[in-house]
Amino acid sequence: MTVRVLTGVTPSGTLHLGNYVGAIRPAIQKSRAEGTESFYFLSDYHALIKTSDPDRVEKSRIQIAATWLACGLDPKRVHFYRQSDLPETLELNWILNCVTSKGLMNRAHAYKAKVEANEAAGEDPDNNVTMGLFCYPILMAADILIFKANFIPVGRDQIQHIEMCRDIATRFNQMYGNGEEIFPLPEALIDEDTAILPGLDGRKMSKSYDNVIPLFEGGEKALREAIMKIVTDSKLPGEPKDPDSTSLTALYDAFATHEERNEFRRKLQEGLGWGEAKVIVFEKINSEIGPMRERYEAYMQEPEKVEAILREGVERIRPMARALVDRCRNAVGLRAFKPLQAKKAAVKAKKSKASLKQYREKDGLFYFKLVNGQGKTLLTAGGLPSGKEVGAHLQSFKASGLGALKGIFCQLDAEATEAEVQSALDELTQE
Amino acid sequence: MTVRVLTGVTPSGTLHLGNYVGAIRPAIQKSRAEGTESFYFLSDYHALIKTSDPDRVEKSRIQIAATWLACGLDPKRVHFYRQSDLPETLELNWILNCVTSKGLMNRAHAYKAKVEANEAAGEDPDNNVTMGLFCYPILMAADILIFKANFIPVGRDQIQHIEMCRDIATRFNQMYGNGEEIFPLPEALIDEDTAILPGLDGRKMSKSYDNVIPLFEGGEKALREAIMKIVTDSKLPGEPKDPDSTSLTALYDAFATHEERNEFRRKLQEGLGWGEAKVIVFEKINSEIGPMRERYEAYMQEPEKVEAILREGVERIRPMARALVDRCRNAVGLRAFKPLQAKKAAVKAKKSKASLKQYREKDGLFYFKLVNGQGKTLLTAGGLPSGKEVGAHLQSFKASGLGALKGIFCQLDAEATEAEVQSALDELTQE
Repeated sequence: MTVRVLTGVTPSGTLHLGNYVGAIRPAIQKSRAEGTESFYFLSDYHALIKTSDPDRVEKSRIQIAATWLACGLDPKRVHFYRQSDLPETLELNWILNCVTSKGLMNRAHAYKAKVEANEAAGEDPDNNVTMGLFCYPILMAADILIFKANFIPVGRDQIQHIEMCRDIATRFNQMYGNGEEIFPLPEALIDEDTAILPGLDGRKMSKSYDNVIPLFEGGEKALREAIMKIVTDSKLPGEPKDPDSTSLTALYDAFATHEERNEFRRKLQEGLGWGEAKVIVFEKINSEIGPMRERYEAYMQEPEKVEAILREGVERIRPMARALVDRCRNAVGLRAFKPLQAKKAAVKAKKSKASLKQYREKDGLFYFKLVNGQGKTLLTAGGLPSGKEVGAHLQSFKASGLGALKGIFCQLDAEATEAEVQSALDELTQE
Repeated sequence: MTVRVLTGVTPSGTLHLGNYVGAIRPAIQKSRAEGTESFYFLSDYHALIKTSDPDRVEKSRIQIAATWLACGLDPKRVHFYRQSDLPETLELNWILNCVTSKGLMNRAHAYKAKVEANEAAGEDPDNNVTMGLFCYPILMAADILIFKANFIPVGRDQIQHIEMCRDIATRFNQMYGNGEEIFPLPEALIDEDTAILPGLDGRKMSKSYDNVIPLFEGGEKALREAIMKIVTDSKLPGEPKDPDSTSLTALYDAFATHEERNEFRRKLQEGLGWGEAKVIVFEKINSEIGPMRERYEAYMQEPEKVEAILREGVERIRPMARALVDRCRNAVGLRAFKPLQAKKAAVKAKKSKASLKQYREKDGLFYFKLVNGQGKTLLTAGGLPSGKEVGAHLQSFKASGLGALKGIFCQLDAEATEAEVQSALDELTQE
């Protein structure tokens, strides 16, 4: 059975080599696995939470789309699209809003972290918290559920969002599924071996440490310059070096074969100069990145092509999303107008209609009782020696109401009213 | 100038005579005013917050749509549609989410009332609060802003929602309008003369008092029966009666002309029996409601017709909504991929590039200065007797940097760094 794997990428900045090694390259490798239907989308509605600079959003969307394509994501093989090109997601988002308890959102880590930071700073707890931030886990659930995705590759910090998505899906299934599982429950896919690339200074490569090597931006020149800045000790050429004293080796490792890695280490131990070593590392990385960069630059020159690819990507899966949303709309009652199920309703009404029942008691006499649609006995009458006599009274009671029973035994139930009797009789005569 | 008036009706129950007199009839009268473009919509996404019974939602949507049409809303003259048929609203809803502070929603009356009730009951403050309830004011803002509506007829309890809509619109305009007012600010339209119809017992007609007279449900029979139950005193026919001792008179007034009202009061004062009076009131109301009820029942028999009317209604205004959402998408940076404004950027870059300027000072000597792209002077050098000599130093400085200026006067600006000098030189050599 084909499983569905869904990956979102938020376009709110530019990419560095750490993103490539840690996320893009392995994701693209996995996208080629058999038996997997992969969904990759730019979560550009999410980007609006992170930045309110429109030009940055615009630039990042193009750059990141071009990057994934340049790195080998095959839009014929996977579904590649932009979140904001699929308005069906926001229809589902609203429907999910209505089954999600606010308490669940109160417990979201990202929100709580903001609140704690605000409190520590003596600010209002919700200072600078937008409703976009607060509601984001529901949008993410809609992204996942709209394609009934089975697996979501995420970092540890995102596990809670998948759990929330499961909560929301479970609640919807319970409230509206009529015993069916409208949404399968997705699972977080945590890759424990995620490669963490060190930056120029040896710490994890990260924009917040200002130690990144750009992936494509600035071209070959920027790549070379960044590598030349990698921190090493001051040993001179000829002196034996510790390969693990610098992040240069880990960077090389991320792009080299097993043999090449050993060879590089050996050379350093034998006295290879840092300058020469940097050239080797640059050339190794550039041999993989270079051809991608060319494709990237070609895409950036013709963004209309990327636009067309993403449009094609979304149009292909849109009918799936539409069908899912239509199913949910139907489940919650947002249905195209058609005659209200009149026949079914009539059958149901007939079943639960008031009734007059004739019977013989242990005392040997004949009686009848009036039972309303809810099965409550309203009145008992009769106490006559023959069924025929009781039948006659029953008919006149039906025609003229309580007045017709004046001469015989007739007892209203303690909890019944004359109005209820009349209304039950009305039902009977409408027959 | 045409003003836009927008009215939403939540389909989560059935309608009674009080709704007709207090809301439907005046709204339909106003919809015929000149110079007004009216929008009427069934806020069925709002209904999902109020009930999770799909059949109730389904039934109420049809009934309420049929009621408005039967009462005379002219779908050729006004825009009549269902909220959930316009997914553009939810696109705008998300964009507005991202500019709305959570603090604003914390202050919503409906939410606060729930929290207070929970706290009074010793429950968690957010017990039974859904995200639908919490986020609803933003959806309402989207409903209004998507058509740039000017006036929203609302009850006093809804004024806060209009104020929130204005807050959200103002914030969006400020963040993304570039000086333009993308959204005009809507105004609440409070009708101080709203007719409040009394119910069977003299209190305001309201489902929560269980004193309503149905509008169409149950047909003429139910209308008659309800009127017969109106509370009066026990004066006998022939005895003079106080017309204001019963809600019968106010009900009659709501459907009668000035003369008829006086006549009815006079008759009661002259001893008209309550039974006869009720027949008069029934006949008066039924003379207005009866023909509408027939139309209502015809619509209920052919809900496909109502469906077609609402579809037509939404398709007519959809391009307007689409254009508005596209404008907002563009404003926040969700733009179709096109070449990033490369030419403009290049012109800008050229204009603001670093420069080397040669000049003669008052002391008669020749100098040059390095100015960066932001117009900041980084370095002044020279103090030589000829322009030629200064020119030669300038060239070698350009080629080899600060080292080339060792023999001559050279002063770094107090706020400039050597790195800035190098970066400005890099820009120059890339020329």
